[in-house]
Amino acid sequence: MSSYASLKHIKASRIGSHVLHVQLNRPERLNAFNSQLWQDLHDCFATVAHDTETRVVVLSALGKTFTAGLDCECAAVQEAVSVVSEREDPARTAYHLRKKIADWQNAISAVEKCDRPVIAAIHGACIGAGVDLSTACDVRYCSKDAFFSVKEVDIGMAADVGTLQRLPKVVGNNSWVREICFTARNVPAEEAHHYGLVGRVFGTREELLENAIALANEIAGKSPIATLGTKHLLNYSRDHTVDEGLAYTVAWNAAMLQSTDLKEGVMAGLQKRKPLFANL
Amino acid sequence: MSSYASLKHIKASRIGSHVLHVQLNRPERLNAFNSQLWQDLHDCFATVAHDTETRVVVLSALGKTFTAGLDCECAAVQEAVSVVSEREDPARTAYHLRKKIADWQNAISAVEKCDRPVIAAIHGACIGAGVDLSTACDVRYCSKDAFFSVKEVDIGMAADVGTLQRLPKVVGNNSWVREICFTARNVPAEEAHHYGLVGRVFGTREELLENAIALANEIAGKSPIATLGTKHLLNYSRDHTVDEGLAYTVAWNAAMLQSTDLKEGVMAGLQKRKPLFANL
Amino acid sequence: MSSYASLKHIKASRIGSHVLHVQLNRPERLNAFNSQLWQDLHDCFATVAHDTETRVVVLSALGKTFTAGLDCECAAVQEAVSVVSEREDPARTAYHLRKKIADWQNAISAVEKCDRPVIAAIHGACIGAGVDLSTACDVRYCSKDAFFSVKEVDIGMAADVGTLQRLPKVVGNNSWVREICFTARNVPAEEAHHYGLVGRVFGTREELLENAIALANEIAGKSPIATLGTKHLLNYSRDHTVDEGLAYTVAWNAAMLQSTDLKEGVMAGLQKRKPLFANL
Amino acid sequence: MSSYASLKHIKASRIGSHVLHVQLNRPERLNAFNSQLWQDLHDCFATVAHDTETRVVVLSALGKTFTAGLDCECAAVQEAVSVVSEREDPARTAYHLRKKIADWQNAISAVEKCDRPVIAAIHGACIGAGVDLSTACDVRYCSKDAFFSVKEVDIGMAADVGTLQRLPKVVGNNSWVREICFTARNVPAEEAHHYGLVGRVFGTREELLENAIALANEIAGKSPIATLGTKHLLNYSRDHTVDEGLAYTVAWNAAMLQSTDLKEGVMAGLQKRKPLFANL
Amino acid sequence: MSSYASLKHIKASRIGSHVLHVQLNRPERLNAFNSQLWQDLHDCFATVAHDTETRVVVLSALGKTFTAGLDCECAAVQEAVSVVSEREDPARTAYHLRKKIADWQNAISAVEKCDRPVIAAIHGACIGAGVDLSTACDVRYCSKDAFFSVKEVDIGMAADVGTLQRLPKVVGNNSWVREICFTARNVPAEEAHHYGLVGRVFGTREELLENAIALANEIAGKSPIATLGTKHLLNYSRDHTVDEGLAYTVAWNAAMLQSTDLKEGVMAGLQKRKPLFANL
Amino acid sequence: MSSYASLKHIKASRIGSHVLHVQLNRPERLNAFNSQLWQDLHDCFATVAHDTETRVVVLSALGKTFTAGLDCECAAVQEAVSVVSEREDPARTAYHLRKKIADWQNAISAVEKCDRPVIAAIHGACIGAGVDLSTACDVRYCSKDAFFSVKEVDIGMAADVGTLQRLPKVVGNNSWVREICFTARNVPAEEAHHYGLVGRVFGTREELLENAIALANEIAGKSPIATLGTKHLLNYSRDHTVDEGLAYTVAWNAAMLQSTDLKEGVMAGLQKRKPLFANL
Repeated sequence: MSSYASLKHIKASRIGSHVLHVQLNRPERLNAFNSQLWQDLHDCFATVAHDTETRVVVLSALGKTFTAGLDCECAAVQEAVSVVSEREDPARTAYHLRKKIADWQNAISAVEKCDRPVIAAIHGACIGAGVDLSTACDVRYCSKDAFFSVKEVDIGMAADVGTLQRLPKVVGNNSWVREICFTARNVPAEEAHHYGLVGRVFGTREELLENAIALANEIAGKSPIATLGTKHLLNYSRDHTVDEGLAYTVAWNAAMLQSTDLKEGVMAGLQKRKPLFANL
Repeated sequence: MSSYASLKHIKASRIGSHVLHVQLNRPERLNAFNSQLWQDLHDCFATVAHDTETRVVVLSALGKTFTAGLDCECAAVQEAVSVVSEREDPARTAYHLRKKIADWQNAISAVEKCDRPVIAAIHGACIGAGVDLSTACDVRYCSKDAFFSVKEVDIGMAADVGTLQRLPKVVGNNSWVREICFTARNVPAEEAHHYGLVGRVFGTREELLENAIALANEIAGKSPIATLGTKHLLNYSRDHTVDEGLAYTVAWNAAMLQSTDLKEGVMAGLQKRKPLFANL
Repeated sequence: MSSYASLKHIKASRIGSHVLHVQLNRPERLNAFNSQLWQDLHDCFATVAHDTETRVVVLSALGKTFTAGLDCECAAVQEAVSVVSEREDPARTAYHLRKKIADWQNAISAVEKCDRPVIAAIHGACIGAGVDLSTACDVRYCSKDAFFSVKEVDIGMAADVGTLQRLPKVVGNNSWVREICFTARNVPAEEAHHYGLVGRVFGTREELLENAIALANEIAGKSPIATLGTKHLLNYSRDHTVDEGLAYTVAWNAAMLQSTDLKEGVMAGLQKRKPLFANL
Repeated sequence: MSSYASLKHIKASRIGSHVLHVQLNRPERLNAFNSQLWQDLHDCFATVAHDTETRVVVLSALGKTFTAGLDCECAAVQEAVSVVSEREDPARTAYHLRKKIADWQNAISAVEKCDRPVIAAIHGACIGAGVDLSTACDVRYCSKDAFFSVKEVDIGMAADVGTLQRLPKVVGNNSWVREICFTARNVPAEEAHHYGLVGRVFGTREELLENAIALANEIAGKSPIATLGTKHLLNYSRDHTVDEGLAYTVAWNAAMLQSTDLKEGVMAGLQKRKPLFANL
Repeated sequence: MSSYASLKHIKASRIGSHVLHVQLNRPERLNAFNSQLWQDLHDCFATVAHDTETRVVVLSALGKTFTAGLDCECAAVQEAVSVVSEREDPARTAYHLRKKIADWQNAISAVEKCDRPVIAAIHGACIGAGVDLSTACDVRYCSKDAFFSVKEVDIGMAADVGTLQRLPKVVGNNSWVREICFTARNVPAEEAHHYGLVGRVFGTREELLENAIALANEIAGKSPIATLGTKHLLNYSRDHTVDEGLAYTVAWNAAMLQSTDLKEGVMAGLQKRKPLFANL
Repeated sequence: MSSYASLKHIKASRIGSHVLHVQLNRPERLNAFNSQLWQDLHDCFATVAHDTETRVVVLSALGKTFTAGLDCECAAVQEAVSVVSEREDPARTAYHLRKKIADWQNAISAVEKCDRPVIAAIHGACIGAGVDLSTACDVRYCSKDAFFSVKEVDIGMAADVGTLQRLPKVVGNNSWVREICFTARNVPAEEAHHYGLVGRVFGTREELLENAIALANEIAGKSPIATLGTKHLLNYSRDHTVDEGLAYTVAWNAAMLQSTDLKEGVMAGLQKRKPLFANL
């Protein structure tokens, strides 16, 4: 757990043996994203990808609210703004902006690429970068007090670190998706559930966390080879044709079916007992 | 507004300073699509793409109903039919049919490619080409009296100007999509909303228009650089993998973040006032 | 019908003139998939693809339940397991596993590629391979007693014959999709309908079959050129960008609009009578 | 021929019955591209696409040289530069630059999309936009005095109207492609032939034209359905996988094989006579 | 070898222990393709795909010439023609033509998909379907007397079973590719080599076969896991971006590097001896 | 230059003001790839991507030869082998092998993604990983004594860090590509040039370096915005359709044409002087 310990605005703690609880931890600023939080987010999930103890992640936030989004007063944004204003050549400015945008995109994508199911447990405000972040998770649960806002158009920009790419692929009513992206309005929890942005809504923050952790524990009891493959193949298939998805799955499972987990799973099933799977 | 003035079966009028109200205007034939209407549709939205005053479009229809679809008695269809029957060589017929289909597809796609959010406000019947048209819009609102029909199989053909391509990408229940495409049955407003074809249903035609215009005005108050980018990137991302969508967004925003709107948006937020954005 | 007659675990019978009723027919083993059933499934739908009498297929199951999924005690699985355990070289094992996985994928994909609408009528348990199979159908109806389970993680593997590829493309709530894939839990009929996995739920198995057959008959009365094209183009468009889908549709319809069905469809419409279409 | 007659900087004349000779016709400025020439190029090939008399096009240039590329002193460039310098907002400048670049790209792509084989006959200098243009042609012949230069880096920009997209796909030595794109150096005819940029080199301008026209006439004697399809499918296949290319070809030829040309071609072959094909 | 024995127009014989010599064997008709030969071609290479003895294939032809292409007088073509002329509905004709074209494409693609390197040894005429066939092989050698002709435009059609898809991807001068596809002219061996259609030219048919077999034997001495993977990944990478190719290679080699061949290969290298690899 | 200084097996030194000379620096082991060299390669080019001084890179090697490829005796390979042999579960082994392969791929791809033209200057042996590396460079020059070998099949594996993906896209004779991949034979410099693997061959190692550096200096004098864009767009276009490449170029150049370099380039051209461009 040592590399998690060095994170400043993210708190990562083990729940039981195989679930990692990752919490946004900058509550005094409503978990707004500054340079440090972007960096921590990336580093945390890059570490998860190599952490063979961890089979499932629960992502929540400390304090009053999930996240207020980008911290417009923080150094990171000042830096981005200064990149724009200090340079006289728009082409060179573009060159330097590219790196900044790509870095932030990579922090969000680290959640998707970490190869462990990530369950977001969202309470209070989930604004701007918070929507980018939550759509990169596998499962989205929230409490009744949660609300969502694709805030970017309000500050004169198109969302650029994942929302416009992932939101329409996790939600089944495109008219609604575009409406909330064009208006930046606050979407309450129940509406978010009705249109498919979240999978379940719970009455209180406690119930939310309890259920997210219960789900995580349930998944952690499954074969890590199986849940890893399921996430990996779902992501792959989202981005490819059915036939390409099938062909890639053949290549993947040619190795992954040669698992001792398959034998253990089948045996446990026949013996009506809970299977026990080794770490990755 | 001069180029809008030359349209015959489409009426385009300004609402407030930045919203264009586009109305199908062939009510005596239930706004059925003839050659002129296809041409007008294309020309209208090609003009929108260069009209820097217009930031949002509301698309509705004059008369009893949104549209009865293709006008089977009109010259356009006669021409298409005559293409088939006059020529003896099926290959040459195919060559000429190609151009006709492509022209009609381009008219519908002009709505998608005009780079301004388009809000469809649908009342009464929305049949055949009307479904093609509405799925090319960004947001779909309708009144309680509206109904939808993917009519094509009833006249012995597969829908070919956009419905089969876009409908499954705006709706989240594929079993239902296929059922209505295979049966051509009338889908009432509430069912259309339940399955995600429309974003909202209103009691009367008046409420429908009122709300569509209110939404348009709200969006028109946002940065035009931001709403343009949001539409452009949502369309791009629909058709690409998440990673391709992110990479393209980097290229796009490397220019578009260098906007004066970003400064205005941030300042207005800090000063708790409504931002004021220049035209494109 | 001779080639259908040679199937052992599938029963195929004609309903009326143009509907084929395909039934999983291994009720004594809860229609679990063994080698023979995989082969029969492939052969049945490969035959459908050349059967110009058949315009629509209803797929249901005989006995207590739709299917219990893969038959873990059958020879097919023994064979797969033995491929793994008999060979000492994991690379050569992978080479032989590839063929087995691909064969099973092809059996499921034969449903999708048969070019006739397939309506699944599901009762009782629909587990594992049953979900793969049903998501490859065009329309999914079920009875109230039905439940669904993406069972694979329970036996230590990622689903590999279609569920992970097709399920997210037929359902509009991705958070829910991932939850049920990671947990393998039983999903009741109403939940399956709410999230879009099935199009309709019926009270009893009788009503289910009645309605599935009624839908099939309705579609069978449409032009076979039109329904064939609609399925083909919906499948194509799911896997391509909107622009690619449109371009392919031009090529397809350049031939298919030269159909005598188009004339018959238009004439019947004008004469307010039911059209009569020839076989393919 | 009337629509060709209205072109100002392009001369289009019929050679024999089915070959159109298109000549860049601004020799006093070395056929440098100004606004008019861009527009004429687009209009000329858009007309070819509907001109059923024309089966093959020869593209050459009047005067001393093929083309000096973009006319940096002309209004078109002044306009582009003024777009940049007049506007203070780099984002809005980007928005307007987009349209200009896209227009020029479309002019070049019209050559590719016109569905008739285009044979470029190049003499003297072929610089900048001339390389974009020639790589959009099907066959490239040149005379010994020709030389080529991908000039753009010399004026501080990356080539953006087709060279970077098409050149690597027409030439088989990528190291060489990149070298000439990075250095902008003049490539003599023989080197261009050695590395695959041109198909043949002729001693004099007269031989060049003679051979280009002879090739055009030979192709014009083939079935127009066949040559149209060959160009269309080669372009399609360049941009798709082999399997996608094959699938599209099935759709295309399902119509195009029903041609009277097929019968005429086979009969002529058996009768050892030259076939005679109707226009499109 | 039993399944090879049932082939009528193809002769398949073992050379040494791991090379299969496949010969077109209808010399009395210049190996022209009739229904039987199409079927045999498909069946032969489908068998190769499961034949773990065979590691490499040499494909040549008996008699005076490689192949005269499609046999216009044979039943297959008569059948195709009769499909067109017997049916009155161009749409239904298209439906049936689709199956015929797809069948022929699949016969050619079986060569590509058989997962063993295939070396074509071509002498005499290689016309029409012969070019489709040879471009689906991995390596193309020919004798000095060989010539090639993309014959299809001469009979009024675009090549539709592989040439237009594969030829531009095996040859590095696109101007030349298009010229020979548009003209159907005979291309002599040396020209074919110069432009990259063949890898080597030999003086006589004997030298040709000798060298093709020597190459086959050399490859047959390599690890079959390695050569299988090399062919599979080259085909995959041709059809994907570099990044997609790399990602698929990771999945593939995660299994295939766990080979006993890797140890044997490394050991043999260190011990300066020839490695000895087991069959697949 | 500090981060370059920490590299152990790579030497990076500035030539003139804008060219970086990167040399493989493990001559005592013939520059064979061990863990350190893989890491250094990645780190070196990751640094180049942020080094605004550097406009062009020359990549060569110290000692007798370019590189002997993978160091089979080194820790990196031992580690890879031990991953395989230490673990009993082939699925978990696959999971760990994936990371290793991906790391090595990323080291090679860093060359491609560094956004500066890279000129490989190859002498002596260029084996295995050396071919992967050189095909990721933009321009390949070599001396007469150079030879190339796609060595992987000799040790029982398919090349997996770039050769199979990139080689066929830089070379225009696919028959030859496959022959050298299947046989692992040594390809002399002249043959490599003939088939397009290298752009030029020089008599001696001195001439080679002299010419590579001269080319680098020539490119370094161009606008860095232009050469960066040219490399970026060539890579993008290689992996996309022509139309996608054009669309991306519009987005890219909407920012990058707003460069002060454009003005400087045009002015210098008119004033017949050498332009002077600022760093990125």
